[in-house]
Amino acid sequence: MLLLSPGLTHTKGSQACTEYANLRLEVKMKVLEIRTPSKETFVDITGRVMEEVSSSGIQKGICSVYVPHTTAGVTINENADPSVKEDILMTFRKIVPDSLPYSHSEGNSPAHVKASLIGSSVNILIDKGQLSLGTWQGIFFCEFDGPRSRRAFIKIFSF
Amino acid sequence: MLLLSPGLTHTKGSQACTEYANLRLEVKMKVLEIRTPSKETFVDITGRVMEEVSSSGIQKGICSVYVPHTTAGVTINENADPSVKEDILMTFRKIVPDSLPYSHSEGNSPAHVKASLIGSSVNILIDKGQLSLGTWQGIFFCEFDGPRSRRAFIKIFSF
Amino acid sequence: MLLLSPGLTHTKGSQACTEYANLRLEVKMKVLEIRTPSKETFVDITGRVMEEVSSSGIQKGICSVYVPHTTAGVTINENADPSVKEDILMTFRKIVPDSLPYSHSEGNSPAHVKASLIGSSVNILIDKGQLSLGTWQGIFFCEFDGPRSRRAFIKIFSF
Repeated sequence: MLLLSPGLTHTKGSQACTEYANLRLEVKMKVLEIRTPSKETFVDITGRVMEEVSSSGIQKGICSVYVPHTTAGVTINENADPSVKEDILMTFRKIVPDSLPYSHSEGNSPAHVKASLIGSSVNILIDKGQLSLGTWQGIFFCEFDGPRSRRAFIKIFSF
Repeated sequence: MLLLSPGLTHTKGSQACTEYANLRLEVKMKVLEIRTPSKETFVDITGRVMEEVSSSGIQKGICSVYVPHTTAGVTINENADPSVKEDILMTFRKIVPDSLPYSHSEGNSPAHVKASLIGSSVNILIDKGQLSLGTWQGIFFCEFDGPRSRRAFIKIFSF
Repeated sequence: MLLLSPGLTHTKGSQACTEYANLRLEVKMKVLEIRTPSKETFVDITGRVMEEVSSSGIQKGICSVYVPHTTAGVTINENADPSVKEDILMTFRKIVPDSLPYSHSEGNSPAHVKASLIGSSVNILIDKGQLSLGTWQGIFFCEFDGPRSRRAFIKIFSF
């Protein structure tokens, strides 16, 4: 039999900020429905993710956002100036030109390449009930082959 | 026996699907041996990862795939049409040309760059004993400097 | 109170190495202060991350490194030959040229694009008190818009 109590946790390393696990072991899942309005667009989902974290009541943990699509992804970048996301999309079009000799018959290979460049998930720490995002950071759902009805899975782990 | 007191767990947010932690706290580790057949190739390891998840008996959790190499990586993309992975490899060769004035004496700098572009790990949620992959998603080990004997670490966390 | 009994944990899959959760459920957080010396540079933080893992006393778990900036990131790549990181930076300058018609008024759009290409976090498994890094792998803080005072969040989860 294993018994877990804060008394069992021993800490070394005076510099480290030790956070004893509280006793809740929770996993919350939410499916976000996202309607993308155009072929290529970054949809700012920061507010919706924050809302899930807030409504979960979880104080410490990790929030994972996962995109189950192969021509879309998710990234963290500046959400103060909207031109940043436009600059990223423009640069991605230069990096992955539509004119390359792609084989895939559906004609959306550039979107597949962009999805692998940007990645399919991000993880953000939760501290004091808040996402530990930097001052300028926002979470963007990245559409590369829209417009479509898309989904993102938000999973919140409490520690 | 694991006893989690629901009384400690307070849930807000009626929209969120709350999943109380089940009683097992398990971590399973598997080292996947992968023989890559050519210089650049994507090896579909979806089936092997699924097999590990299935044989673990874990119903809810997270599956992490980690590549301990610096000229290889792992990505999630379409596994229905094999031409998609060929298109990604072809585009990566355009993005990171062999002809740039690299300094690294081993001559495999393009492979190192591609590894950092694609990333060294992916995380996929497990629900009802299954990987929560999208319909068209597969997991690919990405070789950029083969042929070689490679490894991937699969770690499955149960909640 | 949380009670865990190994007797309840049933294991299938003889090939898999099953690791029963040890008794500590800990989360340790450390903020790393990083002074980047130039506009673009990779700062090797492997030693500092290893030190945190070591001083935490945690034997099994996961270490997450998160960068809260939008013109910087983190990646895992070779740290044996320093020319590899220079080659990656040089290639990124070719992939994301300064000369594109960016809109963002601050003039650092290339740095934002590079941040999304490289990613904002990495996760490394901890086994036997050590990071499960491959032989040649190191962890690099990636500065694309320095010199600046930067931060990285290290969070260590024990299982």
